[in-house]
Amino acid sequence: MAIETNPRHQARSTVNLLRNDALEGAQARRRAQIPDATVARLPLYLRALSELADRGVTTCSSEHVATAAGVSSANVRKDLSHLGSYGTRGVGYDVHQLRDRIAETIGQTQNWKVIIVGAGHLGSALAAYQGFGTRGITIAAVVDEDPALVGSTLGPNTIESVDNLAALVKEHNILIGIIATPPAGAQPVADQLVAAGVTSILNFAPTLVHVPDGVDVRQVDVAVELQILAYHEQRKASSADSGGDE
Amino acid sequence: MAIETNPRHQARSTVNLLRNDALEGAQARRRAQIPDATVARLPLYLRALSELADRGVTTCSSEHVATAAGVSSANVRKDLSHLGSYGTRGVGYDVHQLRDRIAETIGQTQNWKVIIVGAGHLGSALAAYQGFGTRGITIAAVVDEDPALVGSTLGPNTIESVDNLAALVKEHNILIGIIATPPAGAQPVADQLVAAGVTSILNFAPTLVHVPDGVDVRQVDVAVELQILAYHEQRKASSADSGGDE
Repeated sequence: MAIETNPRHQARSTVNLLRNDALEGAQARRRAQIPDATVARLPLYLRALSELADRGVTTCSSEHVATAAGVSSANVRKDLSHLGSYGTRGVGYDVHQLRDRIAETIGQTQNWKVIIVGAGHLGSALAAYQGFGTRGITIAAVVDEDPALVGSTLGPNTIESVDNLAALVKEHNILIGIIATPPAGAQPVADQLVAAGVTSILNFAPTLVHVPDGVDVRQVDVAVELQILAYHEQRKASSADSGGDE
Repeated sequence: MAIETNPRHQARSTVNLLRNDALEGAQARRRAQIPDATVARLPLYLRALSELADRGVTTCSSEHVATAAGVSSANVRKDLSHLGSYGTRGVGYDVHQLRDRIAETIGQTQNWKVIIVGAGHLGSALAAYQGFGTRGITIAAVVDEDPALVGSTLGPNTIESVDNLAALVKEHNILIGIIATPPAGAQPVADQLVAAGVTSILNFAPTLVHVPDGVDVRQVDVAVELQILAYHEQRKASSADSGGDE
C-alpha cells in the first residue's frame, strides 16, 4: 500500500497527501485544486490514453478510458471534469488532447530527477525499471554506503557513495528521493535527503520516517499489501466454511 | 500506489478491494464487515502495537497508537470500534489484547504461503525481505522462466522453473501470488496463477492484469507513486512562483 505519512501531523490516509495546512491551505484554496483521489488516478488514464494513441485511436468514450485504466466510467467522467471539458457529446474525448492535458496537469511535460538511496536488490530493480522515461521521470543518481558497490554500473547509472548524496542532489537539481535501504537506515537517509533539499520522498523501507513540514512522504509497504490480501483470503475461507452461497 | 484492480468490473479505487457483488455482496452483509479503509490501516496498528509490546508498554491511548502508526487518533478510535471495545476510559487500550485481536482479524494468526513469480532484482528483493515472517507471511516458492536462474538459492528458497508453478502452488497450499515479471509476462503469469488455484495476486508489473470473478488483485506501480509526488512538487513550485505565502 502506498500511504502518505507525516507522523508530525498524526494523520494517515491511503488517498490524501498530507499537507501542512498552515503552510499550504490558503494557497490551495486560491488555486484550482484537484482532489488527491483524482491525482492518484490521472497517471492511470495517462497510461491508458498513451496506449490508445499508440494504437492509432483518436477519439474514445469515458467507458473506453475506464476499461483501459480499470476504473469505473463514473469516476473517469468526474475526474476528467476537473481538467475542463475535453469531450464532445456523441463523439467522446480527443485522445491526444486529453493525453497532453493530463500530462501537463501531473507535471509530466517536465523531467523529474530522482535519486535512489540503496543499491541492493530493490534499488537495482528500481534503477533498471524501464517505464520511468516515458513518464517524465529520470533516475539521475544512485548511491549506496557499501564501498564494494560504489563504482558499479546500474543501467545508465554508476553507483556513487552516499557521502556524495548532497552534492548529487544539488548537481542534478533533484527534488524527489527514493529510500530503498533496510529499515534501520531509513530515518538517517530521510534526514540527509531533506537536508540536501529533497522535498518528496518515496519510502520502501517498512518503517515510518519523520520529516519536517513541507516535505511529502509516500510509503510502499509490501507486507501490508500482502496482509490486506490475506484478510480477504480469510473472509473467503470463512464464507466457504459457513456454507456461503458460492 | 497500490490499487486494487478488476477491469471486468470497470471499477478501481485506492481504498476498496473490488469484490464481485453478485458473489459476495449477500455474504458480506450477513457477516460483520470491516470497511476496507480500516483493513488497510489494521496492519499499521499491528506493527505499532507490536513495537510498543516489545518495549514493555502494556497499556496505551488512541493517541499513542495514532502517533506510532502515523494515523489520526480519530481514525484509530473509529477503526478499533469495528473490533469491539478493547479500551477502558481513563486507562486506554490493553496493548497485548489489542495486538492479538488485530492479528486474529487480519488472519495473521494463520501462516499465509506466497509464491513469487520472477526472480530478477525485484523478486530477489521481495524474497530477501526480512519483515514477512513476523507478519504471518512465508515465501514458500520462487519461480522464474530463465533456466540460468533455476537452482540458485535466494535466502531460504531455491529458484524453481516456472513450469513447476502449478505443482508448487498445490504442494504448499498457496493462495497468494506475487507477479514480479516484466509487463509482457504479467497476464500469462496471472492466468497460470489463477489456473493453479491462487485467488489473490499482488502485481508489481506496470500493467493491468485481468482475472476472473472471485480473484483479488492489488497493484503496486512505482511510476504512478512518483508521478503523484511530481504533481505535488509542481504545485509547490507554482505556488512559490506565484508569490505564495511561504
